[in-house]
Amino acid sequence: MSTKTILVQADLLATNKQAAAAIRQGLRGRGILAVNLLSSPGSGKTTLLEALVDRLKGRHRMAVIEGDIETERDAERIRAKGIPAWQITTGGACHLEARMIGKVLGDVPADVDFLFIENVGNLVCPASFDLGEELRCVLLSSPEGDDKPAKYPQAFLSADCLILTKTDLVPYLPFDPAKAAAEALSIKSGLRVFTVSALRGDGMDELAAFFIEALGRLRSAGA
Amino acid sequence: MSTKTILVQADLLATNKQAAAAIRQGLRGRGILAVNLLSSPGSGKTTLLEALVDRLKGRHRMAVIEGDIETERDAERIRAKGIPAWQITTGGACHLEARMIGKVLGDVPADVDFLFIENVGNLVCPASFDLGEELRCVLLSSPEGDDKPAKYPQAFLSADCLILTKTDLVPYLPFDPAKAAAEALSIKSGLRVFTVSALRGDGMDELAAFFIEALGRLRSAGA
Repeated sequence: MSTKTILVQADLLATNKQAAAAIRQGLRGRGILAVNLLSSPGSGKTTLLEALVDRLKGRHRMAVIEGDIETERDAERIRAKGIPAWQITTGGACHLEARMIGKVLGDVPADVDFLFIENVGNLVCPASFDLGEELRCVLLSSPEGDDKPAKYPQAFLSADCLILTKTDLVPYLPFDPAKAAAEALSIKSGLRVFTVSALRGDGMDELAAFFIEALGRLRSAGA
Repeated sequence: MSTKTILVQADLLATNKQAAAAIRQGLRGRGILAVNLLSSPGSGKTTLLEALVDRLKGRHRMAVIEGDIETERDAERIRAKGIPAWQITTGGACHLEARMIGKVLGDVPADVDFLFIENVGNLVCPASFDLGEELRCVLLSSPEGDDKPAKYPQAFLSADCLILTKTDLVPYLPFDPAKAAAEALSIKSGLRVFTVSALRGDGMDELAAFFIEALGRLRSAGA
Protein backbone atom coordinates (compact mmCIF):
# COMPACT_ATOMS: atom_id res chain seq x y z
CA MET A 1 0.00 0.00 0.00
CA SER A 2 1.25 3.50 -0.81
CA THR A 3 1.77 6.13 1.90
CA LYS A 4 -1.14 8.10 0.47
CA THR A 5 -3.47 5.13 0.82
CA ILE A 6 -2.36 4.52 4.40
CA LEU A 7 -2.94 8.18 5.31
CA VAL A 8 -6.43 8.17 3.81
CA GLN A 9 -7.24 4.93 5.64
CA ALA A 10 -6.02 6.43 8.96
CA ASP A 11 -8.16 9.50 8.35
CA LEU A 12 -11.21 7.32 7.61
CA LEU A 13 -10.68 5.30 10.80
CA ALA A 14 -10.25 8.44 12.94
CA THR A 15 -13.48 9.94 11.54
CA ASN A 16 -15.25 6.62 12.15
CA LYS A 17 -13.97 6.45 15.73
CA GLN A 18 -15.43 9.87 16.52
CA ALA A 19 -18.81 8.96 15.05
CA ALA A 20 -18.78 5.64 16.95
CA ALA A 21 -18.03 7.36 20.27
CA ALA A 22 -21.01 9.69 19.78
CA ILE A 23 -23.29 6.75 18.94
CA ARG A 24 -22.15 4.80 22.00
CA GLN A 25 -22.78 7.77 24.27
CA GLY A 26 -26.25 8.29 22.75
CA LEU A 27 -27.24 4.63 23.08
CA ARG A 28 -26.00 4.46 26.70
CA GLY A 29 -28.09 7.52 27.45
CA ARG A 30 -31.15 5.76 26.02
CA GLY A 31 -30.35 2.55 27.93
CA ILE A 32 -30.01 0.51 24.73
CA LEU A 33 -27.43 -2.29 24.52
CA ALA A 34 -25.91 -2.44 21.03
CA VAL A 35 -24.24 -5.65 19.85
CA ASN A 36 -22.14 -5.85 16.66
CA LEU A 37 -22.14 -9.33 15.07
CA LEU A 38 -19.12 -10.14 12.88
CA SER A 39 -18.42 -13.24 10.82
CA SER A 40 -17.72 -14.78 7.43
CA PRO A 41 -20.65 -14.99 4.99
CA GLY A 42 -22.97 -17.83 5.94
CA SER A 43 -21.80 -18.35 9.53
CA GLY A 44 -25.37 -18.06 10.74
CA LYS A 45 -25.75 -14.47 11.97
CA THR A 46 -29.36 -14.06 10.79
CA THR A 47 -30.41 -17.51 12.02
CA LEU A 48 -28.84 -16.68 15.41
CA LEU A 49 -30.88 -13.45 15.56
CA GLU A 50 -34.07 -15.35 14.66
CA ALA A 51 -33.38 -17.75 17.53
CA LEU A 52 -32.65 -14.85 19.92
CA VAL A 53 -36.03 -13.29 19.10
CA ASP A 54 -37.69 -16.44 20.46
CA ARG A 55 -35.60 -16.29 23.66
CA LEU A 56 -36.12 -12.56 24.37
CA LYS A 57 -39.71 -11.94 23.27
CA GLY A 58 -42.22 -11.05 25.96
CA ARG A 59 -39.39 -9.94 28.23
CA HIS A 60 -37.29 -7.55 26.14
CA ARG A 61 -37.65 -5.50 22.96
CA MET A 62 -35.20 -6.00 20.14
CA ALA A 63 -34.36 -4.04 17.01
CA VAL A 64 -31.97 -5.08 14.26
CA ILE A 65 -29.79 -3.28 11.72
CA GLU A 66 -28.78 -5.53 8.83
CA GLY A 67 -25.67 -4.84 6.75
CA ASP A 68 -25.29 -6.39 3.32
CA ILE A 69 -23.70 -5.46 0.05
CA GLU A 70 -26.94 -6.09 -1.81
CA THR A 71 -30.52 -7.35 -1.13
CA GLU A 72 -33.09 -6.73 1.61
CA ARG A 73 -33.26 -10.46 2.43
CA ASP A 74 -31.93 -10.48 5.97
CA ALA A 75 -34.09 -7.57 7.16
CA GLU A 76 -37.13 -9.31 5.66
CA ARG A 77 -36.32 -12.47 7.66
CA ILE A 78 -36.11 -10.46 10.90
CA ARG A 79 -39.30 -8.48 10.17
CA ALA A 80 -41.11 -11.77 9.56
CA LYS A 81 -40.39 -12.52 13.25
CA GLY A 82 -42.17 -9.30 14.27
CA ILE A 83 -39.00 -7.32 15.01
CA PRO A 84 -38.23 -3.86 13.56
CA ALA A 85 -35.29 -4.14 11.16
CA TRP A 86 -33.44 -1.73 8.88
CA GLN A 87 -31.42 -2.95 5.93
CA ILE A 88 -28.27 -1.03 5.06
CA THR A 89 -27.01 -2.04 1.62
CA THR A 90 -23.45 -0.87 1.18
CA GLY A 91 -23.48 -1.25 -2.63
CA GLY A 92 -20.05 -2.86 -2.76
CA ALA A 93 -18.41 -1.72 0.48
CA CYS A 94 -17.06 -4.60 2.56
CA HIS A 95 -18.07 -3.39 6.04
CA LEU A 96 -20.47 -1.14 7.94
CA GLU A 97 -19.25 2.23 9.25
CA ALA A 98 -20.50 4.24 12.23
CA ARG A 99 -21.99 7.01 10.06
CA MET A 100 -24.26 4.41 8.37
CA ILE A 101 -25.56 3.33 11.80
CA GLY A 102 -26.01 6.98 12.82
CA LYS A 103 -28.46 7.57 9.97
CA VAL A 104 -30.78 4.81 11.22
CA LEU A 105 -30.70 5.51 14.97
CA GLY A 106 -33.40 8.20 14.89
CA ASP A 107 -35.89 5.56 13.70
CA VAL A 108 -35.15 3.09 16.51
CA PRO A 109 -38.13 3.13 18.95
CA ALA A 110 -37.45 4.61 22.41
CA ASP A 111 -38.52 1.46 24.28
CA VAL A 112 -36.00 -0.86 22.62
CA ASP A 113 -33.64 -2.80 24.95
CA PHE A 114 -31.31 -4.45 22.45
CA LEU A 115 -30.01 -3.17 19.13
CA PHE A 116 -28.30 -5.97 17.22
CA ILE A 117 -26.19 -4.96 14.24
CA GLU A 118 -25.47 -7.72 11.74
CA ASN A 119 -22.37 -6.64 9.85
CA VAL A 120 -21.53 -7.49 6.21
CA GLY A 121 -20.36 -11.11 6.01
CA ASN A 122 -16.59 -10.63 6.10
CA LEU A 123 -14.13 -11.85 8.73
CA VAL A 124 -11.53 -9.19 7.83
CA CYS A 125 -12.57 -5.58 7.17
CA PRO A 126 -15.46 -5.07 9.66
CA ALA A 127 -13.02 -5.75 12.53
CA SER A 128 -11.39 -2.32 11.97
CA PHE A 129 -14.63 -0.31 12.25
CA ASP A 130 -16.15 0.55 15.64
CA LEU A 131 -19.91 1.05 15.18
CA GLY A 132 -20.51 2.44 18.65
CA GLU A 133 -21.51 -0.98 19.97
CA GLU A 134 -21.26 -2.02 23.63
CA LEU A 135 -20.38 -5.61 22.78
CA ARG A 136 -18.77 -7.17 19.73
CA CYS A 137 -19.40 -10.85 19.05
CA VAL A 138 -17.57 -12.86 16.40
CA LEU A 139 -19.27 -15.98 15.05
CA LEU A 140 -17.35 -19.00 13.78
CA SER A 141 -19.42 -21.82 12.28
CA SER A 142 -18.20 -25.37 12.60
CA PRO A 143 -17.93 -25.99 8.81
CA GLU A 144 -15.42 -23.12 8.53
CA GLY A 145 -12.81 -25.10 10.48
CA ASP A 146 -11.12 -24.76 13.86
CA ASP A 147 -8.00 -23.18 12.29
CA LYS A 148 -9.60 -19.80 11.55
CA PRO A 149 -8.80 -17.65 14.64
CA ALA A 150 -5.03 -17.53 13.96
CA LYS A 151 -5.61 -16.88 10.25
CA TYR A 152 -8.00 -13.95 10.86
CA PRO A 153 -6.73 -12.64 14.22
CA GLN A 154 -8.11 -9.06 14.22
CA ALA A 155 -11.74 -10.18 14.29
CA PHE A 156 -11.07 -12.33 17.37
CA LEU A 157 -8.78 -9.78 19.04
CA SER A 158 -11.38 -7.04 18.75
CA ALA A 159 -14.30 -9.16 20.03
CA ASP A 160 -15.77 -9.50 23.51
CA CYS A 161 -17.43 -12.80 22.80
CA LEU A 162 -17.02 -15.78 20.46
CA ILE A 163 -20.08 -17.73 19.35
CA LEU A 164 -19.33 -21.13 17.84
CA THR A 165 -22.33 -21.80 15.60
CA LYS A 166 -23.86 -24.73 13.65
CA THR A 167 -22.58 -27.22 16.23
CA ASP A 168 -25.30 -29.66 15.09
CA LEU A 169 -22.97 -30.34 12.12
CA VAL A 170 -19.95 -31.26 14.28
CA PRO A 171 -20.56 -35.05 13.98
CA TYR A 172 -20.09 -34.76 10.19
CA LEU A 173 -17.01 -32.51 10.21
CA PRO A 174 -13.32 -32.40 11.05
CA PHE A 175 -14.02 -29.63 13.62
CA ASP A 176 -13.01 -29.53 17.29
CA PRO A 177 -14.92 -26.78 19.20
CA ALA A 178 -12.39 -26.96 22.09
CA LYS A 179 -9.50 -26.39 19.69
CA ALA A 180 -11.25 -23.41 18.06
CA ALA A 181 -12.01 -21.89 21.48
CA ALA A 182 -8.45 -22.44 22.75
CA GLU A 183 -6.95 -20.82 19.66
CA ALA A 184 -9.28 -17.82 19.96
CA LEU A 185 -8.45 -17.49 23.68
CA SER A 186 -4.72 -17.54 22.87
CA ILE A 187 -5.35 -14.43 20.72
CA LYS A 188 -7.75 -12.69 23.14
CA SER A 189 -7.71 -13.84 26.74
CA GLY A 190 -10.97 -13.26 28.57
CA LEU A 191 -13.08 -13.78 25.45
CA ARG A 192 -16.46 -15.23 26.49
CA VAL A 193 -17.14 -18.37 24.47
CA PHE A 194 -20.60 -19.76 23.63
CA THR A 195 -21.35 -22.93 21.72
CA VAL A 196 -24.70 -22.93 19.97
CA SER A 197 -26.91 -24.56 17.40
CA ALA A 198 -29.44 -21.86 16.56
CA LEU A 199 -31.47 -24.33 14.47
CA ARG A 200 -31.80 -26.81 17.35
CA GLY A 201 -31.73 -24.19 20.12
CA ASP A 202 -28.68 -25.63 21.94
CA GLY A 203 -26.83 -23.01 23.98
CA MET A 204 -29.26 -20.19 23.12
CA ASP A 205 -30.54 -19.69 26.69
CA GLU A 206 -26.97 -19.12 27.94
CA LEU A 207 -26.29 -16.61 25.16
CA ALA A 208 -29.55 -14.72 25.82
CA ALA A 209 -28.70 -14.61 29.55
CA PHE A 210 -25.29 -13.10 28.69
CA PHE A 211 -26.93 -10.27 26.74
CA ILE A 212 -29.55 -9.67 29.48
CA GLU A 213 -26.78 -9.44 32.12
CA ALA A 214 -24.86 -6.98 29.93
CA LEU A 215 -28.03 -4.85 29.56
CA GLY A 216 -28.40 -4.84 33.36
CA ARG A 217 -24.79 -3.65 33.76
CA LEU A 218 -25.27 -0.91 31.15
CA ARG A 219 -28.36 0.41 32.92
CA SER A 220 -26.78 0.20 36.40
CA ALA A 221 -23.80 2.19 35.14
CA GLY A 222 -26.09 4.81 33.58
CA ALA A 223 -28.43 5.08 36.60
CA MET B 1 -16.52 7.19 1.27
CA SER B 2 -14.92 10.58 0.64
CA THR B 3 -13.87 11.70 -2.85
CA LYS B 4 -10.21 11.43 -1.79
CA THR B 5 -10.68 7.79 -0.77
CA ILE B 6 -12.41 6.96 -4.04
CA LEU B 7 -9.60 8.57 -6.07
CA VAL B 8 -6.90 6.67 -4.18
CA GLN B 9 -8.86 3.40 -4.62
CA ALA B 10 -9.18 4.06 -8.39
CA ASP B 11 -5.44 4.72 -8.57
CA LEU B 12 -4.69 1.49 -6.69
CA LEU B 13 -6.93 -0.53 -9.02
CA ALA B 14 -5.38 1.01 -12.16
CA THR B 15 -1.85 0.19 -10.92
CA ASN B 16 -3.00 -3.33 -10.05
CA LYS B 17 -4.57 -3.79 -13.49
CA GLN B 18 -1.27 -2.92 -15.22
CA ALA B 19 0.70 -5.34 -13.03
CA ALA B 20 -1.90 -8.07 -13.64
CA ALA B 21 -1.75 -7.62 -17.42
CA ALA B 22 2.06 -8.05 -17.34
CA ILE B 23 1.75 -11.20 -15.20
CA ARG B 24 -0.88 -12.70 -17.52
CA GLN B 25 1.30 -12.06 -20.57
CA GLY B 26 4.34 -13.59 -18.85
CA LEU B 27 2.45 -16.70 -17.73
CA ARG B 28 0.92 -17.22 -21.19
CA GLY B 29 4.42 -17.00 -22.65
CA ARG B 30 5.56 -19.72 -20.26
CA GLY B 31 2.49 -21.87 -21.02
CA ILE B 32 1.32 -21.80 -17.39
CA LEU B 33 -2.41 -21.71 -16.62
CA ALA B 34 -3.08 -19.53 -13.55
CA VAL B 35 -6.30 -19.99 -11.58
CA ASN B 36 -7.44 -17.56 -8.87
CA LEU B 37 -9.63 -19.20 -6.19
CA LEU B 38 -11.98 -16.85 -4.31
CA SER B 39 -14.32 -17.61 -1.43
CA SER B 40 -15.37 -16.92 2.14
CA PRO B 41 -13.09 -18.22 4.89
CA GLY B 42 -13.57 -21.95 5.36
CA SER B 43 -15.28 -22.72 2.05
CA GLY B 44 -12.74 -25.45 1.35
CA LYS B 45 -10.18 -23.87 -0.99
CA THR B 46 -7.17 -25.69 0.49
CA THR B 47 -9.00 -29.02 0.70
CA LEU B 48 -10.04 -28.60 -2.95
CA LEU B 49 -6.38 -28.03 -3.91
CA GLU B 50 -5.30 -31.12 -1.96
CA ALA B 51 -7.89 -33.17 -3.87
CA LEU B 52 -6.75 -31.65 -7.20
CA VAL B 53 -3.17 -32.74 -6.49
CA ASP B 54 -4.38 -36.33 -6.39
CA ARG B 55 -6.25 -35.90 -9.72
CA LEU B 56 -3.40 -34.16 -11.60
CA LYS B 57 -0.27 -35.88 -10.29
CA GLY B 58 1.73 -37.99 -12.69
CA ARG B 59 0.15 -36.13 -15.62
CA HIS B 60 0.65 -32.44 -14.80
CA ARG B 61 2.78 -30.28 -12.52
CA MET B 62 1.14 -27.90 -10.10
CA ALA B 63 2.37 -25.01 -8.01
CA VAL B 64 0.37 -23.05 -5.46
CA ILE B 65 0.46 -19.52 -4.06
CA GLU B 66 -1.37 -19.22 -0.76
CA GLY B 67 -2.76 -15.91 0.48
CA ASP B 68 -3.61 -15.42 4.14
CA ILE B 69 -3.60 -12.57 6.61
CA GLU B 70 -1.49 -14.60 9.02
CA THR B 71 0.08 -18.10 9.37
CA GLU B 72 1.92 -20.46 6.99
CA ARG B 73 -0.67 -23.20 7.57
CA ASP B 74 -2.15 -23.54 4.10
CA ALA B 75 1.22 -23.61 2.29
CA GLU B 76 2.37 -26.30 4.73
CA ARG B 77 -0.67 -28.43 3.87
CA ILE B 78 0.07 -28.14 0.13
CA ARG B 79 3.81 -28.85 0.57
CA ALA B 80 2.90 -31.97 2.56
CA LYS B 81 1.33 -33.22 -0.70
CA GLY B 82 4.68 -32.78 -2.51
CA ILE B 83 3.67 -29.59 -4.34
CA PRO B 84 5.74 -26.38 -4.32
CA ALA B 85 3.84 -23.68 -2.43
CA TRP B 86 4.53 -20.07 -1.44
CA GLN B 87 2.71 -18.42 1.41
CA ILE B 88 1.95 -14.72 1.09
CA THR B 89 0.88 -13.28 4.44
CA THR B 90 -0.78 -9.91 3.91
CA GLY B 91 -0.44 -8.83 7.56
CA GLY B 92 -3.96 -7.46 7.76
CA ALA B 93 -4.80 -6.72 4.12
CA CYS B 94 -8.05 -8.32 3.01
CA HIS B 95 -7.03 -9.48 -0.49
CA LEU B 96 -4.07 -10.37 -2.69
CA GLU B 97 -2.78 -7.87 -5.24
CA ALA B 98 -0.95 -8.49 -8.52
CA ARG B 99 2.35 -7.04 -7.26
CA MET B 100 2.39 -9.67 -4.46
CA ILE B 101 2.04 -12.42 -7.06
CA GLY B 102 4.74 -10.79 -9.21
CA LYS B 103 7.30 -11.14 -6.41
CA VAL B 104 6.84 -14.92 -6.27
CA LEU B 105 6.70 -15.71 -10.01
CA GLY B 106 10.50 -15.89 -10.47
CA ASP B 107 10.59 -18.85 -8.08
CA VAL B 108 7.94 -20.88 -9.92
CA PRO B 109 9.69 -23.76 -11.76
CA ALA B 110 9.74 -23.57 -15.58
CA ASP B 111 8.03 -26.95 -16.05
CA VAL B 112 4.89 -26.08 -14.07
CA ASP B 113 1.56 -26.49 -15.91
CA PHE B 114 -0.87 -25.05 -13.36
CA LEU B 115 -0.40 -22.19 -10.92
CA PHE B 116 -3.27 -22.11 -8.44
CA ILE B 117 -3.62 -18.96 -6.35
CA GLU B 118 -5.66 -19.32 -3.17
CA ASN B 119 -6.81 -15.83 -2.25
CA VAL B 120 -7.44 -14.52 1.28
CA GLY B 121 -10.75 -15.92 2.56
CA ASN B 122 -13.10 -13.04 1.76
CA LEU B 123 -16.06 -13.03 -0.61
CA VAL B 124 -15.93 -9.25 -1.10
CA CYS B 125 -12.60 -7.43 -1.59
CA PRO B 126 -10.57 -9.98 -3.64
CA ALA B 127 -13.18 -9.73 -6.43
CA SER B 128 -11.89 -6.24 -7.34
CA PHE B 129 -8.26 -7.31 -7.84
CA ASP B 130 -7.09 -9.01 -11.03
CA LEU B 131 -4.02 -11.13 -10.22
CA GLY B 132 -3.14 -11.89 -13.85
CA GLU B 133 -5.02 -15.19 -13.72
CA GLU B 134 -6.44 -16.96 -16.77
CA LEU B 135 -9.44 -18.31 -14.87
CA ARG B 136 -11.20 -17.12 -11.75
CA CYS B 137 -13.19 -19.64 -9.73
CA VAL B 138 -15.49 -18.72 -6.86
CA LEU B 139 -16.25 -21.40 -4.27
CA LEU B 140 -19.51 -21.54 -2.33
CA SER B 141 -19.77 -24.22 0.34
CA SER B 142 -23.15 -25.74 1.10
CA PRO B 143 -23.20 -24.62 4.79
CA GLU B 144 -22.95 -20.97 3.68
CA GLY B 145 -26.43 -21.10 2.18
CA ASP B 146 -27.89 -20.89 -1.31
CA ASP B 147 -28.79 -17.18 -0.88
CA LYS B 148 -25.22 -15.89 -1.14
CA PRO B 149 -24.73 -15.06 -4.86
CA ALA B 150 -27.22 -12.13 -4.83
CA LYS B 151 -25.80 -10.84 -1.54
CA TYR B 152 -22.17 -10.84 -2.78
CA PRO B 153 -22.66 -10.30 -6.53
CA GLN B 154 -19.22 -8.99 -7.56
CA ALA B 155 -17.43 -12.26 -6.70
CA PHE B 156 -19.85 -14.22 -8.90
CA LEU B 157 -19.97 -11.60 -11.67
CA SER B 158 -16.17 -11.58 -11.98
CA ALA B 159 -15.78 -15.39 -11.99
CA ASP B 160 -15.47 -17.84 -14.88
CA CYS B 161 -16.50 -20.82 -12.81
CA LEU B 162 -18.50 -21.59 -9.67
CA ILE B 163 -17.53 -24.56 -7.52
CA LEU B 164 -20.19 -25.67 -5.04
CA THR B 165 -18.20 -27.39 -2.30
CA LYS B 166 -18.86 -29.61 0.75
CA THR B 167 -21.85 -31.19 -0.96
CA ASP B 168 -21.45 -34.24 1.34
CA LEU B 169 -23.14 -32.01 3.97
CA VAL B 170 -26.23 -31.25 1.85
CA PRO B 171 -28.38 -33.96 3.54
CA TYR B 172 -27.96 -32.14 6.88
CA LEU B 173 -28.56 -28.60 5.63
CA PRO B 174 -31.22 -26.27 4.27
CA PHE B 175 -29.19 -25.89 1.02
CA ASP B 176 -30.36 -26.40 -2.56
CA PRO B 177 -27.41 -26.65 -5.01
CA ALA B 178 -29.75 -26.02 -8.00
CA LYS B 179 -31.05 -22.81 -6.39
CA ALA B 180 -27.49 -21.58 -5.65
CA ALA B 181 -26.42 -22.33 -9.24
CA ALA B 182 -29.51 -20.67 -10.74
CA GLU B 183 -28.98 -17.52 -8.67
CA ALA B 184 -25.30 -17.35 -9.65
CA LEU B 185 -26.21 -17.85 -13.33
CA SER B 186 -28.76 -15.02 -13.11
CA ILE B 187 -25.84 -12.75 -12.11
CA LYS B 188 -23.32 -14.16 -14.61
CA SER B 189 -24.65 -16.10 -17.55
CA GLY B 190 -22.23 -18.64 -18.96
CA LEU B 191 -20.63 -19.35 -15.58
CA ARG B 192 -19.40 -22.97 -15.53
CA VAL B 193 -20.80 -24.72 -12.46
CA PHE B 194 -19.19 -27.69 -10.69
CA THR B 195 -20.59 -29.55 -7.70
CA VAL B 196 -17.96 -31.28 -5.60
CA SER B 197 -17.15 -32.93 -2.33
CA ALA B 198 -13.36 -32.69 -2.13
CA LEU B 199 -13.33 -34.90 0.98
CA ARG B 200 -15.24 -37.73 -0.77
CA GLY B 201 -13.89 -37.00 -4.26
CA ASP B 202 -17.30 -36.43 -5.89
CA GLY B 203 -17.09 -34.20 -8.99
CA MET B 204 -13.31 -33.79 -8.79
CA ASP B 205 -12.60 -35.61 -12.09
CA GLU B 206 -14.90 -33.21 -13.97
CA LEU B 207 -13.23 -30.19 -12.37
CA ALA B 208 -9.72 -31.48 -13.16
CA ALA B 209 -10.80 -32.12 -16.77
CA PHE B 210 -12.04 -28.52 -17.01
CA PHE B 211 -8.63 -27.18 -15.95
CA ILE B 212 -6.78 -29.56 -18.31
CA GLU B 213 -8.96 -28.42 -21.24
CA ALA B 214 -8.28 -24.77 -20.36
CA LEU B 215 -4.53 -25.50 -20.29
CA GLY B 216 -4.82 -27.07 -23.75
CA ARG B 217 -6.59 -23.96 -25.08
CA LEU B 218 -3.99 -21.65 -23.52
CA ARG B 219 -1.15 -23.57 -25.18
CA SER B 220 -2.92 -23.81 -28.57
CA ALA B 221 -3.46 -20.06 -28.53
CA GLY B 222 0.21 -19.46 -27.67
CA ALA B 223 1.59 -21.93 -30.23
